[in-house]
Amino acid sequence: MSKARQGNFFEDFKPGQIVEHATPRTVTAGDAALYTALYGSRFAVQSSDAFAKAIGYPASPIDDLLVFHIVFGKTVPDISLNAVANLGYAECRFLKPVYAGDTLSASSEVIGMRETSNRQSGVVYVRTIGLNQHGEPVLGYVRGVMVKKRDEAASVPPPLIPQLKGVVEPEMLGGAGLPPLDLRSYSTALSGSPHRWGDYMIGEKIDHGDGMTVEEAEHQLATRLYQNTAKVHFNQHEQGQGRFGRRLVYGGHIISLARALSFNGLENAFHVAAINGGRHVAPAFAGDTVYAYSEVLDKARTARAELGALRLRLVALKDKPAAGFPFKAGDQYDPAMLLDLDLWVLLPV
Amino acid sequence: MSKARQGNFFEDFKPGQIVEHATPRTVTAGDAALYTALYGSRFAVQSSDAFAKAIGYPASPIDDLLVFHIVFGKTVPDISLNAVANLGYAECRFLKPVYAGDTLSASSEVIGMRETSNRQSGVVYVRTIGLNQHGEPVLGYVRGVMVKKRDEAASVPPPLIPQLKGVVEPEMLGGAGLPPLDLRSYSTALSGSPHRWGDYMIGEKIDHGDGMTVEEAEHQLATRLYQNTAKVHFNQHEQGQGRFGRRLVYGGHIISLARALSFNGLENAFHVAAINGGRHVAPAFAGDTVYAYSEVLDKARTARAELGALRLRLVALKDKPAAGFPFKAGDQYDPAMLLDLDLWVLLPV
Amino acid sequence: MSKARQGNFFEDFKPGQIVEHATPRTVTAGDAALYTALYGSRFAVQSSDAFAKAIGYPASPIDDLLVFHIVFGKTVPDISLNAVANLGYAECRFLKPVYAGDTLSASSEVIGMRETSNRQSGVVYVRTIGLNQHGEPVLGYVRGVMVKKRDEAASVPPPLIPQLKGVVEPEMLGGAGLPPLDLRSYSTALSGSPHRWGDYMIGEKIDHGDGMTVEEAEHQLATRLYQNTAKVHFNQHEQGQGRFGRRLVYGGHIISLARALSFNGLENAFHVAAINGGRHVAPAFAGDTVYAYSEVLDKARTARAELGALRLRLVALKDKPAAGFPFKAGDQYDPAMLLDLDLWVLLPV
Repeated sequence: MSKARQGNFFEDFKPGQIVEHATPRTVTAGDAALYTALYGSRFAVQSSDAFAKAIGYPASPIDDLLVFHIVFGKTVPDISLNAVANLGYAECRFLKPVYAGDTLSASSEVIGMRETSNRQSGVVYVRTIGLNQHGEPVLGYVRGVMVKKRDEAASVPPPLIPQLKGVVEPEMLGGAGLPPLDLRSYSTALSGSPHRWGDYMIGEKIDHGDGMTVEEAEHQLATRLYQNTAKVHFNQHEQGQGRFGRRLVYGGHIISLARALSFNGLENAFHVAAINGGRHVAPAFAGDTVYAYSEVLDKARTARAELGALRLRLVALKDKPAAGFPFKAGDQYDPAMLLDLDLWVLLPV
Repeated sequence: MSKARQGNFFEDFKPGQIVEHATPRTVTAGDAALYTALYGSRFAVQSSDAFAKAIGYPASPIDDLLVFHIVFGKTVPDISLNAVANLGYAECRFLKPVYAGDTLSASSEVIGMRETSNRQSGVVYVRTIGLNQHGEPVLGYVRGVMVKKRDEAASVPPPLIPQLKGVVEPEMLGGAGLPPLDLRSYSTALSGSPHRWGDYMIGEKIDHGDGMTVEEAEHQLATRLYQNTAKVHFNQHEQGQGRFGRRLVYGGHIISLARALSFNGLENAFHVAAINGGRHVAPAFAGDTVYAYSEVLDKARTARAELGALRLRLVALKDKPAAGFPFKAGDQYDPAMLLDLDLWVLLPV
Repeated sequence: MSKARQGNFFEDFKPGQIVEHATPRTVTAGDAALYTALYGSRFAVQSSDAFAKAIGYPASPIDDLLVFHIVFGKTVPDISLNAVANLGYAECRFLKPVYAGDTLSASSEVIGMRETSNRQSGVVYVRTIGLNQHGEPVLGYVRGVMVKKRDEAASVPPPLIPQLKGVVEPEMLGGAGLPPLDLRSYSTALSGSPHRWGDYMIGEKIDHGDGMTVEEAEHQLATRLYQNTAKVHFNQHEQGQGRFGRRLVYGGHIISLARALSFNGLENAFHVAAINGGRHVAPAFAGDTVYAYSEVLDKARTARAELGALRLRLVALKDKPAAGFPFKAGDQYDPAMLLDLDLWVLLPV
């Protein structure tokens, strides 16, 4: 039998199965610098040790989405090497800050499975936990992914569909996942905007203005940085003969671009606390210019008096400025849409 | 009113106004590694802790131009988001070394303004100071930038044109901005050349030989690393419809390429002490191959007996080797010229 | 005489000559992060401080090939700036781990020379040693390079061809070059595969499966990171007029890609202990998709009971999956072959 990994097929998964993923990863100042170079993010807490320390962090924490991508990358060889489609995320919570020098590892539990009607594939639901070197959870999320069957005739377990929360409850946000913060020392001059939690209203939409064109080298560097080995992102020789004729950009690259663009209008949303759900509406390719806007879906207090939560729809668009806030016409997404992400961010009250 | 920043227009500035810029930034070994990967710089002091410590630095300092770009990047959202043109730099001095772990912030004072004759824009002169986390100035420079008016009819202050030195006095160089150095331990075998300050003559020209082709991904990575958000560098969707049809390369990227190329012939010019002036003669685009040469305009002793200063004209050319030292024909720059930079560098005597 | 370096020509070398190379280089976590982003390597020892410490390293060591490329890069201005061809490597041994914070320098001794029959060039053999800041050798290798003559008529020394070992003896592997290791703590769940040294058989071939397309920005970033200044990799203006019409990818970039791809099937081959020989069979260009396979040429015990050595042929192919293990037809390499590398890797027994 070949020693090279072929990845798991639908019938290789079992409900309740726990997979420990390979390649623990120490996150460093080098990763943080690359993340800045790849997306241009400018949130002060993640950019400055001095700013982060002034409000109570021991050091500038690693960007929440960089933690997400690294943990996600570890799951790919076991969970989605034979994926047909990534169906989305749920119940994603950032549980503890990660600092340069921390080592991340990950494991996933199969919490649901259902065969698709054509019997060629099935949906696997996994709950993935990212841990630091002390064994403390730093991130948890559920992912649904459609995986090919190796053998159409293989028998499969009865359907098990997990009950997932559509929205993480705001009282679960901002708790032990953050150090004690003293936001009297939070400088809105340095953070780039006077707009605090109280200044945002439900229904408000924010055009983040800028557009960012994606290059092949950029998304490849990013996706390798996350040690994500999904073939579709790297192999033009094979993709050139496929459906799109091109390498697909890792969906997480678009999430990070949209989040970085969202700084312009959400400068004080310094922490992504949870991702309630998300959908990659269309594939992205090198050459696409990504624009983004946010809509405030909800506001809530958190477990901490000094921190408020905004529930946002973060939309990424391709080659279309966000000025008109395109979304859906009826059931159909606007053809320019790349990403429809539902997340909680925290701001000083 | 939209929360997304539109940037300041000419009539938003006032003489004497001081702007504190957003997003303090901790500079790390990750940034230094990316800087090396982007330009291939090889000056021993910035490349090796062991070399730097041997001559008296506490550690290898961050490349002077990386400090410049990070400070410059912070000013963009406040000063030049609506710029028509960057007119140049003056009185730029590197005041203190920056080390990995230092946090940079920046503020600018408006020291001059004049409306252009067509009343559609005006020139704003700002003096920008970069500070470390101890509040110590690490960099100061003046920049003139032509900024659009929001409203042509807006009334504006009377013209105020700052008196700027054409050249930083050499006695201001090499002072408290450097730690005590013991250059007896400076190894010219390790630095790459035996040529010290005394070996260069006024009028001497040095062809730096190599050419470096710029890729879109490279200048975008660089410019985001500096958290510089100027739209023209990143948005092909918009730029494709504009005057050039292409993304513009950040001018500072060309400065850093030229400086890195200048290692070949100026191996011991280990510190950029000052930039007397500079002009981006023509825009640069991905695909351009950059060549460089230097001309020694002047030589001087500095505040330190062991350090000599060379005043250089550093010229960057596009798709044309530097062998013939093209410069001007009459008043016109050679059509291949990208950059005409006037700077002071320090070498061991 | 121009101060810019023109590089040495064949007649500038003398047998026994020792060249100390310029620009010592501190290797940092930033370099390691870039290396991950450039190749996507996933070996647990190099990826995780926690994993490395668990088995006895003081910290995660720098990837062996990153050390090789940095040392190699230093030799280019002195040895191969005027190279016609890189003939290959021999007797390459990794002598001591390198950690973030170590400073590398390098020197080379000319151990052989022979003029080519057309008298336009000659082959120079150098033994290069890379040292850390304590003066301890971390790497040694022999390289043969064909260098142009400046003057065809120049007289040259009589031919001196060094006697080189075709294969590094396995008893020289795994000795003082590694810290004491306790491999009972080596987790094959975290490393990504249960296959230890004993599971590989001589003659076994492993298709590493994935393909990776090279972009111009990627190989340029890599090659500059190594401060390798060979002109052919960076200058499209000049290369566009040359034999290939394109920039050549640094051969070491292909070695690192192949090594990173080889993780899939060789997950526990955590240390490259030696390179017995290597040949860049054909030049690589941006746009090429690189596939790789390994063949187990030999197996041996090492100086340490807990570590076994595999001698591998690591083959990189261009735009051709490795499934059929193409190699030679008669004396001719398969036209898809880029690299034929012969190396010793170490695995837990």
